[in-house]
Amino acid sequence: MNVRETVEDLHSRYCHILDDDRLEEWPGLFTEDGKYRIATAENEARGLPLPVLSCDSRAMMRDRIQSLRHANIYEPQRYRHLVSSVVISQPDNSRIASVSSFLVIRIMHTGETAVFASGVYRDRIVLVPAPLYEERVVICDSRRFDTLLAIPL
Amino acid sequence: MNVRETVEDLHSRYCHILDDDRLEEWPGLFTEDGKYRIATAENEARGLPLPVLSCDSRAMMRDRIQSLRHANIYEPQRYRHLVSSVVISQPDNSRIASVSSFLVIRIMHTGETAVFASGVYRDRIVLVPAPLYEERVVICDSRRFDTLLAIPL
Amino acid sequence: MNVRETVEDLHSRYCHILDDDRLEEWPGLFTEDGKYRIATAENEARGLPLPVLSCDSRAMMRDRIQSLRHANIYEPQRYRHLVSSVVISQPDNSRIASVSSFLVIRIMHTGETAVFASGVYRDRIVLVPAPLYEERVVICDSRRFDTLLAIPL
Repeated sequence: MNVRETVEDLHSRYCHILDDDRLEEWPGLFTEDGKYRIATAENEARGLPLPVLSCDSRAMMRDRIQSLRHANIYEPQRYRHLVSSVVISQPDNSRIASVSSFLVIRIMHTGETAVFASGVYRDRIVLVPAPLYEERVVICDSRRFDTLLAIPL
Repeated sequence: MNVRETVEDLHSRYCHILDDDRLEEWPGLFTEDGKYRIATAENEARGLPLPVLSCDSRAMMRDRIQSLRHANIYEPQRYRHLVSSVVISQPDNSRIASVSSFLVIRIMHTGETAVFASGVYRDRIVLVPAPLYEERVVICDSRRFDTLLAIPL
Repeated sequence: MNVRETVEDLHSRYCHILDDDRLEEWPGLFTEDGKYRIATAENEARGLPLPVLSCDSRAMMRDRIQSLRHANIYEPQRYRHLVSSVVISQPDNSRIASVSSFLVIRIMHTGETAVFASGVYRDRIVLVPAPLYEERVVICDSRRFDTLLAIPL
């Protein structure tokens, strides 16, 4: 696989892990001190620092998933991620910057299906020793959120 | 084209054949004894064998399309397939396993547009003599179906 | 980047320019005498010449964007483009034909999100001196349009 294929493969595995409800595997896609945060386009444009959700390490991500599993506050539901328009650049040999668009569909237990979220992933990716996210910033188009956002996007 | 490009090209042609209403070309994307079935995520998780729709050969697929054309029960409408997150593996030299996510939008004659289905394609693909589906399993996220599902996804 | 990657990269940059509201950069993705038009599947099938929107050069595209900015008739909103199922062919060494599927999500100022448009891009692309659209025809699945279509798809 070349660099573009490697990046697209990482994005694809990320989506399937979330959509298959294999949330425990999600932190393993980040470096040990990987960053993950969800923000809104509005906040990013204004330079406001307050993200909707933020993790500063794999350990924090694991905690977040464990809380989710124990709290069990969320209704049974499925997500379906669609990712497209990947643009990559390579500022240096060891790192890749990737921008891509996403759409998340939510399927409720009743079978009802609707657009849940859309936006952009802004990523810094390392290739060695394996392709991993060093940072993933999820910038949502809409500022409207509900409590279900506790699940990673 | 390398293996990944070949697989993505096959998936892309599949989508355009359905969305352009060139249904008669659909069986030609499978091997002569190719399998196609639609199931729900719920049924697959429970190991229930009953698929929503199932074909065991190209001939059966041709029959299905002919019935569709003759029955003409369905309202005039369009579909639009979006496919993403392709993950491929190659268990042996002659076969490829592919998992990808899909979203199908339905456009009614009135112009009304809505999310129709989402889910995963689980495929076995052969490359020789040409890239063809040996098996395509369509696993829908929602268990809600209507009669329109008679058209392949 | 090989030919397929070059084409996908061009499609991706196109989407981000529109979704980031960097409309002034949009004409720069076309050749100086590049063509752009939006039509409906219904009209294309009937061979009707009247497109919903049509530009015959980069200069016309710049005018269109300037009018949009000055008129300022449209409500604050965001778009999110998803592109998939790219099929490319290369009729000669200097040109590429590309067909791809798109879905556009519209996010209103209120945060409300809905499917806005879907359809096919039919493109002629040149590679030299840089990858640019010589022609982009946007064929929308739905014949239902509102005034907001003044913004490029």
